[in-house]
Amino acid sequence: MSLSLRPVTLENADVALPQVLQLITALAIYEKEPDAVEATVESLRESFFGGAEGKGEKYAKCVLAYQGESEEPIGMAVYFFTFSTWTGRGGLYLEDLFVKEEARGLGVGKALFRYLGQICKEKNLPRMDWVVLDWNEPAKNVYKKMGAVHKKDWEGMRLEGEALA
Amino acid sequence: MSLSLRPVTLENADVALPQVLQLITALAIYEKEPDAVEATVESLRESFFGGAEGKGEKYAKCVLAYQGESEEPIGMAVYFFTFSTWTGRGGLYLEDLFVKEEARGLGVGKALFRYLGQICKEKNLPRMDWVVLDWNEPAKNVYKKMGAVHKKDWEGMRLEGEALA
Repeated sequence: MSLSLRPVTLENADVALPQVLQLITALAIYEKEPDAVEATVESLRESFFGGAEGKGEKYAKCVLAYQGESEEPIGMAVYFFTFSTWTGRGGLYLEDLFVKEEARGLGVGKALFRYLGQICKEKNLPRMDWVVLDWNEPAKNVYKKMGAVHKKDWEGMRLEGEALA
Repeated sequence: MSLSLRPVTLENADVALPQVLQLITALAIYEKEPDAVEATVESLRESFFGGAEGKGEKYAKCVLAYQGESEEPIGMAVYFFTFSTWTGRGGLYLEDLFVKEEARGLGVGKALFRYLGQICKEKNLPRMDWVVLDWNEPAKNVYKKMGAVHKKDWEGMRLEGEALA
């Protein structure tokens, strides 16, 4: 199988962002939260590129995976950069990685991980982090085989809505 | 008590970054990891400002808290921006919040949280996230009173060192 990975850019956004939104929706269904998606093409454009003129804060980046000559992506990774006070250096956070059901087992996820690992290498980032749903044993097994470790001892906290206001 | 909050900038970095490093070290001792700090003034300069010329990737921001006329900070918050595919929007991640032992109970932490909440409001960010050590009951109680919720169901994963390479 010939696999290619292409970042989503301002130039290809008109075609790519609706495809990203489709993949996000498919991921939400897989994660048993079909109604969780509030994202729109416009909110993605705003968040990835700092708005149509590219002047605002950029919150994340996205790369799409394509098979052969098809212009329909079969997988994606959405990521952003983090920082650790201990290391004093940046890191990469994988917000979402998704491969369409019909394309699983072909190494697409691995290729996406390798792409992100390459970014870590180029930018000299010592860590890549992500979270996995506690019931998702297939994914956890894949991550363990890759050498990923489970970060224990920490509990995630969140402020939103009324409490944040 | 008069309390002031000032962001660390390229202009005040020569004075502020060594103070930030002191606070990071004090935090590491409090979190029972005194040897965990690999950060240096130079790695902080690189990560906060994209190097001395400010052209590289910027991974985090820092704000310091001062009491009265003192130029010695009594607390800090280090944070960066995140992204959620569900909301399609950015968020704020509080990497570290620390208040010197002698300045606790004076509302410094609350003032820092309010500062970050204001940034969320200005940038229209729906979420502020952070993690807390599972044994740190005093901090967990404060966060619960603020209205923060514990994100269950997710397990943190990390790739670093050999596995990341």
